[in-house]
This record gives sequence, structure tokens and C-alpha cells, in this order.
Amino acid sequence: MSQSHSIAPRRSATPVAPTSFDSEADVIIVGGGAGGLSAALFSRWLGNEVILLEKAAELGGTTRKAAFWYWVPNNLEMRNLGLADPKSDCIRYMARLSRPEAYDPDHATFGMSPLEFSTYEAIYDNASPATELLAEKGALEYRHCPDVPDYWAELPEDKAPKGRVLLPKGACDSMSDGGEVAVRTMSEAARRDGVEIHTGMRVQRLIRTNSGEIVGVEADGADGKSFALRARKAVIFATGGFTHDVDLRKNFLTAPVLGGCAAVTNEGDFVNIGTAVGAQLRNMNYAWMCPISLEKAVNGDPSLIGTFSPSGDSMIYVNKHGVRVTNEKLAYNESAQAFFEWNPALGEYSNLVLVAVWDQRSQDHSESSEHGRFIVPPGTNDDHVIKGASVDELTRRISKRLAGYARHTGGLKLAPHFAANLMKTIKRFNEFARAGKDLDFHRGERPVELLFNGPTAPSPSAPNPTMFPVAETGPFYAALMTGGNLDTKGGPKTTPDGKVLDTSDRAIPGLYGVGNCVASASARAYWAGGATLGPILALSYLATKAANAEPVKGATTARTAAE
Amino acid sequence: MSQSHSIAPRRSATPVAPTSFDSEADVIIVGGGAGGLSAALFSRWLGNEVILLEKAAELGGTTRKAAFWYWVPNNLEMRNLGLADPKSDCIRYMARLSRPEAYDPDHATFGMSPLEFSTYEAIYDNASPATELLAEKGALEYRHCPDVPDYWAELPEDKAPKGRVLLPKGACDSMSDGGEVAVRTMSEAARRDGVEIHTGMRVQRLIRTNSGEIVGVEADGADGKSFALRARKAVIFATGGFTHDVDLRKNFLTAPVLGGCAAVTNEGDFVNIGTAVGAQLRNMNYAWMCPISLEKAVNGDPSLIGTFSPSGDSMIYVNKHGVRVTNEKLAYNESAQAFFEWNPALGEYSNLVLVAVWDQRSQDHSESSEHGRFIVPPGTNDDHVIKGASVDELTRRISKRLAGYARHTGGLKLAPHFAANLMKTIKRFNEFARAGKDLDFHRGERPVELLFNGPTAPSPSAPNPTMFPVAETGPFYAALMTGGNLDTKGGPKTTPDGKVLDTSDRAIPGLYGVGNCVASASARAYWAGGATLGPILALSYLATKAANAEPVKGATTARTAAE
Repeated sequence: MSQSHSIAPRRSATPVAPTSFDSEADVIIVGGGAGGLSAALFSRWLGNEVILLEKAAELGGTTRKAAFWYWVPNNLEMRNLGLADPKSDCIRYMARLSRPEAYDPDHATFGMSPLEFSTYEAIYDNASPATELLAEKGALEYRHCPDVPDYWAELPEDKAPKGRVLLPKGACDSMSDGGEVAVRTMSEAARRDGVEIHTGMRVQRLIRTNSGEIVGVEADGADGKSFALRARKAVIFATGGFTHDVDLRKNFLTAPVLGGCAAVTNEGDFVNIGTAVGAQLRNMNYAWMCPISLEKAVNGDPSLIGTFSPSGDSMIYVNKHGVRVTNEKLAYNESAQAFFEWNPALGEYSNLVLVAVWDQRSQDHSESSEHGRFIVPPGTNDDHVIKGASVDELTRRISKRLAGYARHTGGLKLAPHFAANLMKTIKRFNEFARAGKDLDFHRGERPVELLFNGPTAPSPSAPNPTMFPVAETGPFYAALMTGGNLDTKGGPKTTPDGKVLDTSDRAIPGLYGVGNCVASASARAYWAGGATLGPILALSYLATKAANAEPVKGATTARTAAE
Repeated sequence: MSQSHSIAPRRSATPVAPTSFDSEADVIIVGGGAGGLSAALFSRWLGNEVILLEKAAELGGTTRKAAFWYWVPNNLEMRNLGLADPKSDCIRYMARLSRPEAYDPDHATFGMSPLEFSTYEAIYDNASPATELLAEKGALEYRHCPDVPDYWAELPEDKAPKGRVLLPKGACDSMSDGGEVAVRTMSEAARRDGVEIHTGMRVQRLIRTNSGEIVGVEADGADGKSFALRARKAVIFATGGFTHDVDLRKNFLTAPVLGGCAAVTNEGDFVNIGTAVGAQLRNMNYAWMCPISLEKAVNGDPSLIGTFSPSGDSMIYVNKHGVRVTNEKLAYNESAQAFFEWNPALGEYSNLVLVAVWDQRSQDHSESSEHGRFIVPPGTNDDHVIKGASVDELTRRISKRLAGYARHTGGLKLAPHFAANLMKTIKRFNEFARAGKDLDFHRGERPVELLFNGPTAPSPSAPNPTMFPVAETGPFYAALMTGGNLDTKGGPKTTPDGKVLDTSDRAIPGLYGVGNCVASASARAYWAGGATLGPILALSYLATKAANAEPVKGATTARTAAE
């Protein structure tokens, strides 16, 4: 939590009446990640005076940590290449995955609510124009990734399984540093084009007239000094989710999540600030999920990156009994679910910690410090790696390590038969690896699993590139994994164009939200790589148009105690 | 939804300023189930003028449908019988189950938050006094159930595994109609003691002064006429959960729930009304759960009762592949979880519907119309029962029935090998039944499973009374089951004495909540039979004391447009 010393503490979110302002602009943007930066740029390009406030000492938020793939249905490169991506099919794919239990292929909105459906339409219609505008203005140029599949490319509902993913131009070949590139180019464009940017400014509450219009924000600087800022047209929140607010996490999320790799400043600020002006909360039960290092999560390591790519062909996950319970190579959002299985007979989350185990082959050939891989190269920080010359030594050391985290895991510890079971599990897995067929969990059978398989030894190779027999003698390596958040998906409910709705579904005048701080229409789905950032850019584009069209408000009440 | 014609539709929850009032009292209670009736009684007995408003045409809410067991730790009968139930042990049991992943036996509050811990203390301290006062006043006399075990009686943390459950005196021997009894006696006492009761009154919103004090409610009668009612001291909500609001359910609950057996009036009114005055929402992800009839839930049958007791020894649950996936006799809250397992490889809830299958033996000997059993007697409504002379005929009819519910289940249908697998499953189950040992799911090994086993044939008996071999020839019977709610557990956050808290954890002056309309400190746990109603009575008792001590407010602003 290195940034915590430079950020004012959270204070009351209760809105206040307008009195006097320290500064003003047409549009105030709260948050400096992809949602906020893009909203600032779009608003500015529409001719607005824009102030952007970021709580942290630097811009970027979670975006800076992201690979910044962005999912843009029917993008220009697809059209240039003749890759068809019809609107109805794309929306069908989104619906199929977002609420599978409600999906109805014969229904006018595929079983989704009208609001969800219209948000999918808005994503489809606006992602490409938003992307092109950002590129034209030099704020975010891209390269197309024609070979990257959607995460559910094998589903019959996916009619354009490859080609929707873009990456910032200039990102490295391994596609891991797009976030750094995007934050840099978008920030530079924002400064170039006259967005007024203030970092170290924590927005605490809204300023609201007695007729209910939002006319500004109150923010505290890192030094504790408070400022009242007027927004003539609108305030747009883009402050991220609530991954780092323990209380919100445990009272809203489906799963017992111990942390995540969102920026440590993602504390659900808009849940509180929005609720305080009567916003409805929605989709609070879901998150963008990923396996993460238990230790980094519990220790609040701000460098934590989700394990997008669980590399290693001679690598398996086992539970406290030493048995496999999942396909290790599932796309990360799905892989994370394995940790949260409730055991209704024992009254426990038996798999809350799974142990990744690998051998020297994977250590030598699948090492990488990118994409959150846990098999890391020599010379890099490997505090999370447990080593043992034998299975018995490994087992003892895992037990010891787990004991130190007991209060975070409900006392989870290895069962007495762990080592014996682990040897049996390795033998069974090795048969699968030799045959190229995982009869238990079907590892490697899906396109997305190959996408994230990571580096492996060039030879000998097994019939299934995701599996190679694990050595039956040491040395062995292990890492403690749990399920975590990239960030959460819930928050105030908005229209597709970002207007925040009150409990009667009326827009709160002048208040907007984009990105992970507001309710996502994706519900439980992770459609593809960049299904976070692509829709954020699309909906940010749409929200700024609506904000631009807002009437100037609050002029007569400024400098007056009205409430 | 038989009551819907007599209830005003939901309108805006936005609070209004006090103008003129149609009536007034010291305390206004909203909701006429156990929470509301007990709060009305306790408030009245403290000397307050009390008005109780119920939305439905009659009092009782979900309570009327309940068996009304009530869980009262360290109750008078236990003390008289010398059954020790020390406070610290009882709280340890609650903590172990409520948030198992956070439970820490060595921590001062067992790993729970201070608020959760103090709420457990409040339940322990107040359940017995509340119960005794209700009994002394003749509002709710009880009989002790010394042989009813807690639902996790086998856990080492349960130091008083039997004796905490009470039942309304006068309930039938089979202990299923306690709710009818309790609503009758509590209503009679309320009328006798001068509580002013109005049914058919839907509270739409709060009346709030410009200083933020709650001073009353606006309610609409069934005829649409509106009333403004002043509460001199406090408004206490006891309006139940959000089981019957589809939008709230799918945006907050952990599981894809299709309905539940709460009163059909439980539409989350206080989620909206509370949020509109800035209340924090908490524990929105959990519900009191139970297997339910898919068909009754989807068809909105107001008579739906959760399957507390899945009777039948020659009865099994199978999924769409014809295989068992769970222990059918688990306590209902746990049994319900089996339906919600997410299949991360296929992107579906593969077990969202399980099929209960039984033979003639169970039909003849395990029939009952009580405790939500699905094996019902001849002459009662058995629309939910599917019959087949053979496994093939049964399979065809199940398929046809499922097809009619496809849009509620994401198109769930039987796999082609269902019938063949079902026969294999029956053979395997029958081996277990003959041996008395379920090697797959350990059916019948826990005290609570015997409690809910229901009636069975007297002979021949098998070694394990919960299992008897299923006949391998027809006739066969089946019912479509899914997981459902008794009611939800989330809502505005309160102190142990029922004060509703805003986003800054400050009490909203004059606003209280008890029961399923506010956040439950039990999180995911269902500690025992009556773990709903016992704590509701305890916390209602405490809330009414706090409300009684509130200053009279709003007097100067009444009849004035202040905001």
C-alpha cells in the first residue's frame, strides 16, 4: 500500500449544498485510469473545459497494471480483412455468457433485461468509433491481434471467434505492457489538448442543489486541504471497483475473495458517494476474476498481477488433499471459480487455496515474469515459491507456509495424506500427458487454453502442448494460489450512456459513471481478452456525448447556502 | 400472486419533507410478520402509541408459512434442564459457520467484524428475555423441543447441540404449523393491547426533515389513497427480504435463484426505501436457502413451501445426466447449494435443475403434505409429480416437462444418456442402501439428516434409515427441483439495536429495521432450525428499547414545507 501515505483518508460521503467554489469546468472527471482518461479526452474534444481528479499520486489506476488488450467487436481491421461480425450474433454471444441461466435464443432480447440488451448494443455500436477517434487523435493508436481468440471461441454462439482484440501500438511483442503504453499516450494527449489534471485529489462527496442536481464535487488533497469544484454540465465517475474494501467485498461478492490486482486505490469510492445521493446499486455480486498468489494478496502487495497465464506443461494444481480439482489452463475468470467451491457437508471452502506444483522442466522452460506467471526467472522476486528436494520436503514446507496464513483461510491446512495423494495424482496426470488427453478435466481442449499456455520446453513435446509428465523425483516447486479479483463489476446502475439512476430509475441530473465503478451489464461473463477495456472505451464515448448535451446547471445557486 | 390486486403498486421511494399528517403515533411499524408484530408488541408494552402497517390484506407475511421453530440459545428450559450453553461457545459456533473462511478460534472476535460479533452477543443475550416476555404476556407461549439438534450438531464448535429450539404452544405434533399459531396469538395480543393495525397499506417512502431526521412514512392504501403518518419517535421496518424482486435477486444474490417461498409481498421494499435515504446495504449476497419445486417457483405459486424435509428412503436426486451430485438429505440450506454449481468449462449451471426420483415404496410410505415434501398423498395437488411406468417413459415425460421451462433454466434438458445413467445410478445407490453406507455423498451420517428424513415404510428397514434400495422396475415418480430462497438476508446495515446506518456509519435518526429486510449478521450460515425467527425476536426486542428511548422529533416542522 505504498500510496496510502499520500492520499487523504476517506471521509463522509454525504452530499453537501453548493456554497462557494474554488474552481470550475464544464465536466469534472473523477479517476485517471482508462475510463477517466478516455472520458476526459472525449469531453475535451467535444469542446468542454475538463478537470480530471485522480486520488493517487500518478495517473493510470488499474489500467497501468493491465496488458490493455481491448475487445472491439466489428472493428475497422476486421472489416478491412473481411471478417464478418454481425451485430445480432455478437450480442447473442454476450447474452449467452452473461446470464446463462436466463439466455433464451428465441427471445427478442435473448432473455436479458432491456437495459442489459441495450448496453450490449451500445458496446457493439460505439467500441469501434471510440477506438478510431482515440487513434486518429494520436491518444491511443493500436495494432490488431487477428489471431487472438475470444475466451469462449468454441461456443456455437461465437460467430467471430478471432479478430476482435486490439492492443496499444508500441506494446511489447509479448503483449503484457499495453497498460503502461496506453496510460502514457492518453495522458500525453490529455495534457496536450488542455485537460486540467490534478493528482493526489480524493473526491469525498458530491455537491447537490436542493432540487437534486449534481453541480460539483468536494475533494481533499494529499495534504488534507479541501476544494469545492463546480461542474457546469456533469460529473463523470471512473474510480474503479471495490476490490480493496474488505467490507464491501465480503458483503456483496459471490465468492470469499482475499484480494486482487486492481490498483490499491480501488476502494469502492463511488459505491459510497453514489449511494449517498440515492443511486441504485446493481450487479454487486460479480467480479472480473483471476487466480492470484495467496501471499501477495494477503500481504497487500501492490505489484500483484493476476495469473492470466498459468505457464508450465509439467505443472498441476492440487487441493489440500493432494488431488486435482480443476483444469489449470481454463481462462482465468473461470479458473478462479474452482477456489470458491463450497463443501456443504463439511461447512468449508475446501479449495480456497490450491497449490500449484511443478518440476525442474517447467522451472527451466516456463519461467517468465509476465502475465502474472508464478514460475519466475532466477534473480526475480520468488518469495511466493516453495521449494523441496522431495515430495515430503515440499509437503512440510507447504504446511509451514500455510500455517502462517491460517487466519485468512479459515485455518486451511494440508490433509495428512497430502504427500501420498500428490504422488498418485502426478502418476495419473502423467498418463494423461503421455496420451495427450486429460480424462478428468479436459486440459488443453479449448483455444483459449493454448493462448495462455505460456512458454514450454521445445522438446521432447507431448501430444497435448499444455501437458507434459511431471518428474516423479525432485526438486519440486510450489506456489499457493487463490481466486481473486482483477476488479469488481458492481456499482451504481446507469443507462448505456452513463447516466446514474436513482431507486425510481430516474437519472440523477448531472451524474455519470463509466468503467468498473458502475454496474457492468456483463454480469458473470468474461467474453474475451479486453472485454473490460473495450466496453469501457465504448461507454465512455457515449457518456461524454450525453454529458456534453447536459444543460448548464446550478448557476443561480452557486455561492448560496441553499439547503 | 393472489394478493397483487389488493396492493398499491410500488412508486417512488424518494423521501419527502413533512407537510401535514393524517395520523400519528410514537412508533410506526412497517410489516406484519414476526418482526413487525413482535416490535409492535414490545413497543406497546414500553408504553408507546403504536401503528402497524401491513401491505398485504392480512397479517403474517412469510411467518404465516413458516413452521416457526425459534432458536433461543441458553433458553429458560435449557437452564431448567441443566443444559449448559455458555455464551462464548455459542458465539464461537455462530462465527464458525457464518464466515468459515474468516473464522479464527484464537481471535478476540473469532475473526468476525466487531459489528457481527456484537450482533451475535445481542442475539445470545436477548433471545431468551424476548421469548419469556412474549410468553408471559400471552402473545407467544412456547413448548421446548429438547431433542431437536442444531443443523451442525456434529461440529466440535457446537457445545449445546440440542435444546435451543422452541415451538409455539399449540402447534401440531408434526411441528409444521407454528407460523399460523404464532401469527394468530401475536395478532390477538397486539389488538388486545391497543396496537393500531392497518392492512392493505403499502409504505412507499419516508418523511424526512431537512436536518435528516425520519419523522414518518407515506403509505398508499389498496384503493390508491395516500396517507402521511407521523412517527414521533421512530419508524421500524420489518418488511422482509427481496425474494420476489427478480432484478434485485439477480443483481445481488450469489446464486441464480428462480424464486422462493417468502410471502409474495417480499419485494425488497426496504432496499429501495432505505437506499433512498442513504442507508448502506450489506450482506446482499446471501439468502436463507432451500430446495424448492421448480414449477411452483416459476409459476409464482403463493403456496410454495421450501422442501425442508426431502422424505423417501428409496428416493434420489439426479442431474440432467442421470447421476447423483449431492447428498439429498443435507440440511436444506446446504442442500440448495448443489443446484448452483457453475461448470467453468461448459459455461453453464449444469445442476440448476435436479430431478427427485422415487419408487412405489416411497410413494406409499413417505407421502406427506407437510414441511414442503414433494411426495404428496393421493387426493392432494400433485401437479408437480411426473409419473412413468418405466424409466424410459419417466424420462420422456421429464424431458417434455423440462422443455416447458427452458426459458427459465437456460434451456436445460436431459442428456441423451439420461435413462441409461439413471439405471446405473439406481444400482449404485442400491448397493449403498443395502450396506447402509453412501460412499459417494455420505447420506444419513449427520444428526440433522435424520431429523428431516420424514416418514418411511416400517419394514423391511435398511441399516441406514435414510436409504432403501430403489425398485429397479416401475412405476417411477419424479419432481423437478431447484434451489430457492426462504428469504434473502441482505438490506440496510444496522447496529445490533436496529439503528439503520448511512454510508458514514452514522445512525439515520429515527429509522430502524429488524428481520429479513435488514442485513443479517449470519452471513452464509443457517445455524439451526429457527435461526431465522429466534434472532428476529431477540433483535426486535432490542430495537424497540432503542426506539423507545428516541427523542420526540419533527414537532416543529410538522405541517410546514421545509425542504
